[in-house]
Amino acid sequence: MAYKADTFGLTFRPHFKTHQSIEIGRWFREQNVSGITVSSIGMAEYFARDGWDDFTIAFPFYRGMTDGLKRLQKNADLRLFVNHADDIAHLNRELRNEFRVYIEIDAGYGRSGIPVENKEEIESLIESIESGEKSHFHGFYIHDGGTYRARGEEQIPGRVADSLNALRELKTIYPEARTSLGDTPSASVLENFDGIDEITPGNLVFYDWMQVQIGSCSIDDVAVYTELPFAQQIGRNRSIVHGGAVHLSKDYILNDQQDKNYGQAVKFVDQSVNVIDDCFLSALSQEHGTLTGDASAAVDANGTVRICPIHSCLTVNLFDCYHTLEGTKIEKRVLS
Amino acid sequence: MAYKADTFGLTFRPHFKTHQSIEIGRWFREQNVSGITVSSIGMAEYFARDGWDDFTIAFPFYRGMTDGLKRLQKNADLRLFVNHADDIAHLNRELRNEFRVYIEIDAGYGRSGIPVENKEEIESLIESIESGEKSHFHGFYIHDGGTYRARGEEQIPGRVADSLNALRELKTIYPEARTSLGDTPSASVLENFDGIDEITPGNLVFYDWMQVQIGSCSIDDVAVYTELPFAQQIGRNRSIVHGGAVHLSKDYILNDQQDKNYGQAVKFVDQSVNVIDDCFLSALSQEHGTLTGDASAAVDANGTVRICPIHSCLTVNLFDCYHTLEGTKIEKRVLS
Repeated sequence: MAYKADTFGLTFRPHFKTHQSIEIGRWFREQNVSGITVSSIGMAEYFARDGWDDFTIAFPFYRGMTDGLKRLQKNADLRLFVNHADDIAHLNRELRNEFRVYIEIDAGYGRSGIPVENKEEIESLIESIESGEKSHFHGFYIHDGGTYRARGEEQIPGRVADSLNALRELKTIYPEARTSLGDTPSASVLENFDGIDEITPGNLVFYDWMQVQIGSCSIDDVAVYTELPFAQQIGRNRSIVHGGAVHLSKDYILNDQQDKNYGQAVKFVDQSVNVIDDCFLSALSQEHGTLTGDASAAVDANGTVRICPIHSCLTVNLFDCYHTLEGTKIEKRVLS
Repeated sequence: MAYKADTFGLTFRPHFKTHQSIEIGRWFREQNVSGITVSSIGMAEYFARDGWDDFTIAFPFYRGMTDGLKRLQKNADLRLFVNHADDIAHLNRELRNEFRVYIEIDAGYGRSGIPVENKEEIESLIESIESGEKSHFHGFYIHDGGTYRARGEEQIPGRVADSLNALRELKTIYPEARTSLGDTPSASVLENFDGIDEITPGNLVFYDWMQVQIGSCSIDDVAVYTELPFAQQIGRNRSIVHGGAVHLSKDYILNDQQDKNYGQAVKFVDQSVNVIDDCFLSALSQEHGTLTGDASAAVDANGTVRICPIHSCLTVNLFDCYHTLEGTKIEKRVLS
């Protein structure tokens, strides 16, 4: 991704919410990444301990963040998402140092941000930012979760088109503004970044089964798996593994038969990952996982089953470290 | 619940998977609870540190548990779920001390356990257990998750009827066997426990919005809430709170309009909890929660919103402590 960003002349400002690991963060630093994206004060403080000093806090500003931002500003540059003039005034009063502001834009995804058609609101907000003593208008940010509805690489550009058009339109109105695009599917497959200055994907560090279905990557790109004890064969096509919602979280993807898949069984063979067709977690309770399909093809010699997580961001959040295939341990932050 | 169990002549052997807190465990001890139910070796070891010494490991036995069971047996009595004769033989070889065995029965819920109609398999397994030097047949256990499909207190007895009938039938065949029923809805509302010897509910320690919908309890019985920063008003009926899947997990319940509800907004007024009608979390991403409805009715003076969790077991698993209304902190186990 660092190479791709370089090729397209984009700033690569990865989101660190997925791995939440100082050690993995260093892998990015080795690729010349110097500024990162996080989603909370606590996450920024965790990475600041390893010397990171240029953060985008990619969450709508609220007053409860103020004390944390003051602490962070002692050693770091901050870019904030602020969508209200009174919050801009508040931050100019409260913060000691200068800070940059992204205006988060909603081009139709419908989570957070100012709808792109509200041009007067955007103009007025930029004026507030520019008139502040410490606030500087930096640009526009869109996280387009709509790309998660793609099913196949070829669908991704169409899903993100409204967001790209919105950023390009704003760039014609405000040529000095930087434009930033957040989602992993777009960063992974787009070949045309005209009008875009920055990408901030996070999930790409591991990918997952959902990203394989979306078309962002292949299974060989997925870099994190859970290894669960196989507990009991129940019927010919049903068994229980020791892995439930407290180990995997509960995101699912619908398979072709519209069954819920909470985790895809795979097997490691030599250097590659084999997907075990029609073998997946069809139900999760707190600690039980119901494995549907022919478990015999999935169980390893040591009595465990490897599961490709549906949404790696949520799954790894439930563990306190990673184990590599070489037997080393990688520490991570615990609880968000 | 302790009082109810006493009234009906039942053993109360609560599941501690929900609260996972030594301090909260002591509240049960004050009610004369001496044996508890857990779902993993790690959870048993955590509670053993506070002197608990009588555990039911309510998860199908698998060989990977063996070393942990050996450690636990040094100071504790164990009741295990074992459904295969070869595992019984393995445990008789490996464990040093005697242990009891529940046979987990499936009366139609379809998760784990031996189908109740497999009478020969059950008989043969009992013979294996009884013929072991250290294994003792203790009885039959059913966790009937089917009660979670009830919508209203009056539906619960019907949902659990197959399980009750299965346990009663087995009791007529094996009069010495103890019968144990696992789920919180049944334990909460049943008034007829004929043929049942033990209840092991866990969720009852806090309850949650799902249990209110099931009919197990009223909102005034729910004892745990999340307090989330209100982040940004987006539209008249849509706002963003800082609380996502890493804070709440992703269980949901469908409301009357078939919308997904990932968390119900409430407000604390004096000593009671007011449900804010039509105000709930309609979508969760990793850290963002989309609050649908009139947030102004939900936001507290300190800029936070209180959310009644859909499934408290999964939500509290994502936090490292509880805060009481009196301002004290209750520690809990982190990560499962």
